[in-house]
Amino acid sequence: MAKKKKSEKPALLLYADSESSADQLYLGRFFVPDPFVSFVVNGRRIALFNALEIARARKESAFEEIHSWEAWRERAAKRVGPGRAGVAAVIAEFARGLGRRRFRVSPAFPYGLAGELEAMGLTLDAAPGGLFPGREQKDDTEARAIRKANACSAAGIREAEAVLRKASVRAGRLYYRGRALTSEFLKEAIEIACLKSGGVAAHTIAAGGDQACDPHCSGSGVLRAGELIIVDVFPRMKETGYYGDMTRTFLKGTPSGRQRELVAAVKAAQQEALRAVRPGVSAPGVHRRVVAILEERGFRTSVEDGVPQGFFHGTGHGLGLELHEGPRLSPAGTRLKKGQVITVEPGLYYPGLGGARIEDVVRVTADGAEKLSSYPYRWVLP
Amino acid sequence: MAKKKKSEKPALLLYADSESSADQLYLGRFFVPDPFVSFVVNGRRIALFNALEIARARKESAFEEIHSWEAWRERAAKRVGPGRAGVAAVIAEFARGLGRRRFRVSPAFPYGLAGELEAMGLTLDAAPGGLFPGREQKDDTEARAIRKANACSAAGIREAEAVLRKASVRAGRLYYRGRALTSEFLKEAIEIACLKSGGVAAHTIAAGGDQACDPHCSGSGVLRAGELIIVDVFPRMKETGYYGDMTRTFLKGTPSGRQRELVAAVKAAQQEALRAVRPGVSAPGVHRRVVAILEERGFRTSVEDGVPQGFFHGTGHGLGLELHEGPRLSPAGTRLKKGQVITVEPGLYYPGLGGARIEDVVRVTADGAEKLSSYPYRWVLP
Repeated sequence: MAKKKKSEKPALLLYADSESSADQLYLGRFFVPDPFVSFVVNGRRIALFNALEIARARKESAFEEIHSWEAWRERAAKRVGPGRAGVAAVIAEFARGLGRRRFRVSPAFPYGLAGELEAMGLTLDAAPGGLFPGREQKDDTEARAIRKANACSAAGIREAEAVLRKASVRAGRLYYRGRALTSEFLKEAIEIACLKSGGVAAHTIAAGGDQACDPHCSGSGVLRAGELIIVDVFPRMKETGYYGDMTRTFLKGTPSGRQRELVAAVKAAQQEALRAVRPGVSAPGVHRRVVAILEERGFRTSVEDGVPQGFFHGTGHGLGLELHEGPRLSPAGTRLKKGQVITVEPGLYYPGLGGARIEDVVRVTADGAEKLSSYPYRWVLP
Repeated sequence: MAKKKKSEKPALLLYADSESSADQLYLGRFFVPDPFVSFVVNGRRIALFNALEIARARKESAFEEIHSWEAWRERAAKRVGPGRAGVAAVIAEFARGLGRRRFRVSPAFPYGLAGELEAMGLTLDAAPGGLFPGREQKDDTEARAIRKANACSAAGIREAEAVLRKASVRAGRLYYRGRALTSEFLKEAIEIACLKSGGVAAHTIAAGGDQACDPHCSGSGVLRAGELIIVDVFPRMKETGYYGDMTRTFLKGTPSGRQRELVAAVKAAQQEALRAVRPGVSAPGVHRRVVAILEERGFRTSVEDGVPQGFFHGTGHGLGLELHEGPRLSPAGTRLKKGQVITVEPGLYYPGLGGARIEDVVRVTADGAEKLSSYPYRWVLP
């Protein structure tokens, strides 16, 4: 085995499609639906593509070196026999050409392939912080892409608000264009609005009443006057792959005093958390401050009959080419760094009373944070 | 280490979210955006959920045993210390409770987590054929879900056809409602139609002329009369997670003689392949038959100036909770089995002439195949 030079930077190896793998998309800026092999060697981005993708890759991708998958499979087949020239053998063959036997991989690298590569004499190290820890810190181009994605979220929320405003109330139920207004209809209207703004939204939430007390329940059935309706919209932009993520809470009709207090508490906690975001601040500290504000206002967190209520999720999460990525704005987080993009989304959930969540997105700047999302906070709709 | 009883079925371990992992969705029939831990032990489906998901999981999922993530994390923390009670420690703790140290995992299991578990004394075996090889063979419920997903694809294609029919031609370019008709507009119209049929379509293809010669190019810019336009629509159903996948090729105006021959060849090859599908038939054989029909009609496959042309992708692929899954209807495939659901989608691509692809979906039955997709093959639009 060749002795590793001390100065040599570790070479990276990826095997994933770039629709689901943010690392692969980050590296090549190119959507491919099937897994492919890529490397970073001395800072140079290299990929192997089959006949189906290679022409498009040459035109559209950010890879600096593109090789034919079939040509390398042929070379591998000459060494190991055509029946054994699978993905592992092709990677091993290409690695031989690179003069490398050791690669850094993502913790998410497929275990099965890793085993095959190790059996062929390669050494893999899973990078504990991920392959591109710098992916958490967004540059201006990325921040613009996320801002655009949040404009897409806002388009969805604006559509929801417009439908709720136009809705009429009969016997406590909402009607729109002569039909009962359902969560399903509202979600569809939101997702169409997102498409028209360049983003694909899935698993959109438009949940009212007790349904909204399950923060990931997407909502079903007829919406009602006087119930809190959580609208959470997180489209992925078709062009860039960046996500938006924004939540507003609405109520059609007249809220109760306790509902007003609930929404005011969430709003106060969210605004305070937004103000607290800056480089070096402790993420768990920001989260604890949110909990404290909610508790000061009488909103406690507990488990009743096995069902959690109050505030039982993190205050926020990183946002980028993944919907949920680092850093965490929660008890498990660390200190925030300049460039990180995070959601700030406290919520309160009490079966019987309802749920409220308000979510915006900020980027940590040199001395504070800039908001990458924008939508009014009005929530009581006549 | 406890001696493994000979009769003991291997326990399965999964760690993935169920929006991107088909295995996790197949097991629990429950959409969760963040990775979670699940097991199959003696046929029993077990999962650990955090406070954010547990109530919804109890209501909606197919897991037979659901445990609190936080409770097991606390137990793990007592053993290893709170700072080290991560995912691996919780899995190890739960495995201790199960009395198991050996688990079968997917080849896609994360390598980083696998390394941590092995360091804690667990043994993992990557199942070479995947964790649920039976996932390829669809039962009647699944076939119905895929049929519905293809009705959603058809709704998208119907919308595209309607727009193209209504389009007018000026100086060879298409216009719709007073504006130049672009690939982007057509894709948006398709995706809205899919949403209205219950599916989320992304990366939709509506590509004309030479763009369509790159089978994964999604298309951009103004569409033209007299050019072949490939429309490939593959929505995922919101309710079930099953995919549809259907392609038609259109031409607005009057095709050339060679364009007619091209489309006729693809159609003939596709129909012949559809007829050939039955249990026990060789998938590479079906693919070779497609190649032969195309060649008999004068359509050869080659590489010109580094750009592949002719027919250079597989004839089809499995379809289900993944868009591309086993089996393959290509040189790399094996023999087809009853219940498998596959696309049949030959294509021809010649820069200068254009591209054509026609795609339907079938399920292998006891003695042949049933079509799970339905849409006319008319392609010349006045």
